[in-house]
Amino acid sequence: MREDRERQARVLDAMLGAALDAVICGSPSEVLLLTGYWPVMGGSVAIVTGAGERCIVLPADEMSLAEKMTSAVLVPYKPAQKDRLLSPMEALAAPLASTLQRLGLAQATVGLSIGRGMQPASYAVMVEFRASLAEAVRQMQPNACYVACDAMLEHLQGVKTARELEQLRKAANVASDGFAAVEKALEPGLREAEVAARVQAAFASSPRGEEFERSYGSFFCMSGPNAALASAAYARTRQRRLEEGDLVIIHANTCGDGLWTDLTRTYTVGPPAARHREMRAAIDEARSAALAAIHPGIRASEVDRAARTVMERHGFGEAFKHATGHGVGFAAANPDALPRIHPQSPDILEEGMTFNIEPAAYFDGYGGMRHCDVVSVTNSGADVLSRW
Amino acid sequence: MREDRERQARVLDAMLGAALDAVICGSPSEVLLLTGYWPVMGGSVAIVTGAGERCIVLPADEMSLAEKMTSAVLVPYKPAQKDRLLSPMEALAAPLASTLQRLGLAQATVGLSIGRGMQPASYAVMVEFRASLAEAVRQMQPNACYVACDAMLEHLQGVKTARELEQLRKAANVASDGFAAVEKALEPGLREAEVAARVQAAFASSPRGEEFERSYGSFFCMSGPNAALASAAYARTRQRRLEEGDLVIIHANTCGDGLWTDLTRTYTVGPPAARHREMRAAIDEARSAALAAIHPGIRASEVDRAARTVMERHGFGEAFKHATGHGVGFAAANPDALPRIHPQSPDILEEGMTFNIEPAAYFDGYGGMRHCDVVSVTNSGADVLSRW
Repeated sequence: MREDRERQARVLDAMLGAALDAVICGSPSEVLLLTGYWPVMGGSVAIVTGAGERCIVLPADEMSLAEKMTSAVLVPYKPAQKDRLLSPMEALAAPLASTLQRLGLAQATVGLSIGRGMQPASYAVMVEFRASLAEAVRQMQPNACYVACDAMLEHLQGVKTARELEQLRKAANVASDGFAAVEKALEPGLREAEVAARVQAAFASSPRGEEFERSYGSFFCMSGPNAALASAAYARTRQRRLEEGDLVIIHANTCGDGLWTDLTRTYTVGPPAARHREMRAAIDEARSAALAAIHPGIRASEVDRAARTVMERHGFGEAFKHATGHGVGFAAANPDALPRIHPQSPDILEEGMTFNIEPAAYFDGYGGMRHCDVVSVTNSGADVLSRW
Repeated sequence: MREDRERQARVLDAMLGAALDAVICGSPSEVLLLTGYWPVMGGSVAIVTGAGERCIVLPADEMSLAEKMTSAVLVPYKPAQKDRLLSPMEALAAPLASTLQRLGLAQATVGLSIGRGMQPASYAVMVEFRASLAEAVRQMQPNACYVACDAMLEHLQGVKTARELEQLRKAANVASDGFAAVEKALEPGLREAEVAARVQAAFASSPRGEEFERSYGSFFCMSGPNAALASAAYARTRQRRLEEGDLVIIHANTCGDGLWTDLTRTYTVGPPAARHREMRAAIDEARSAALAAIHPGIRASEVDRAARTVMERHGFGEAFKHATGHGVGFAAANPDALPRIHPQSPDILEEGMTFNIEPAAYFDGYGGMRHCDVVSVTNSGADVLSRW
């Protein structure tokens, strides 16, 4: 059972600051933030009160897992039983209503997350509450006052506790066991899908996965001209066969018990060409410049500027097509997660913030190179959590 | 570019039946249903009008993929650009509003999906609109009339077209390349995570993956006593080491371009014990009884009864802990998808419905066995799409 008192205190502080008596959330990454438990398929609802009570109404099948990860009060419901066919909202409604009543929230000011968000895939299929959770809660407690607390949650997710930083570092270590298998997998003639499968298998087999209840994620392979397409918001493994001289981008989003990494390395099939060496020199220097700029109190836009200036000086300004980074941890890859390391970002770095630093250069029809680390802000600088 | 005129006609028929002038949806599996395009990270909004116009407002990065899969009008928006930092809803709002206006929906009766649903994982991270898409649309067109169309969409997803059946059969064939690797992977002493990784790699490397733009999914391994836990709503691979005499459940949810399989096979490490042979005989017979019962017009509950009666006769009534099946295709594993092959199900089978048939027996502390196929209803009986 996992207790993160620092996280619990921060949640209560934030609720106090927002004048909330309670927060009710149904998205897996929010349940994780509020309680330490990362639901498997969704369908769990977390309730935290200003008095420090923490409850999760959750599918009964997830009880044994939740008991290992949280000290919150667990209220199970049974969505599927042989002898009755209830809709999931019907199964959830009674235990949720009685929990809200027990917590005395009839007149409370309650925070709900209602805006668009990015949710990492916790399983092959996940519950979407859409508008129905907020609707159900409103009907159960019609005299309570409901306010959107999306911004509060986003900021809470942006700044990690010591425990979360350690968890993220461990997750990056497990991911490194996948990357360690890349060099051997880069045989000319293999399809990208085969390379990605081998690397994924090395990651998924890592004995270090034992450090988590759930360790998983996705590795992607983009080679030759396809590596240029890695500038998109998403990675995609295709069936192209590797050729001598290719740039090969291996991208990974992996997690340990709900905290996610966002990692990229670039390789060459065979010895690197002169152009590859130039790209790598620029990206390495841009990465160092970004890392050197990071400290509490600096504008995120200045960190972007530090990296971008280097890329521009090397003639790769146009080729560096995206922001230098974005928040990482509670989402796998979300360009809108705080802090946004973007030229126009209004965000200010705080100790404990974690984000990626991903300088890159992409050339349509030719290829691309990216180096992406997960980094945290220390009390005086930057700590690379994916240092391997 | 994929055209499924049968699907387009059915959507229009259903809208006519529900007296809807338009449907607006933002969940990936619904966008797929309405347009043939399966969004990568979510954030796409599909609009279909009663006049047969089909539009998708989608992230610009997904244009090239969408062009291959749909003939709908594509309206791109740019969520992340170097020179401006917009929130995703801000980026989406202008093209969505102008599309709604162009389609003349100011006074329309518009269907929205607002209830809880199950969404297969289309990427490592996915957009959740929560209440914000419905809210945005209401503000853009305040004089339109909005109604929930969840039930209509669920029924449309339940009954596949000829083209979708073929796609699902192909997806099952690619999955079979993973299952073909299981026997060789079942070495005593290997951890479940290693077995799952090997099987997953065989699936992900399959050359038949080329038949799809996106072919992926998850294989799980549950061995010995852990196989009993496979009765839960979700599968989970752990670090247990395989032992001689174990029952080993291999479960998979895989997809080809957005249509999902739900498949399970059970193996033994070494020769099967007498008890294993009894379990297998019962499960094989229950499967055959369920398949024999399937035809258009029969109650789904009778199909469950056919399988359950066999299990009871063999003394495995208690051990068969869940329903005989549930709808499969647009969700990876959703016990509430139509038709529910459940003792209390009110659903009636129709030609083109696809679901799993998953007779099973679980014994706490000992192990479990399940055989799960994807099946469709033909004009006179059942067709097993995962026949290999």
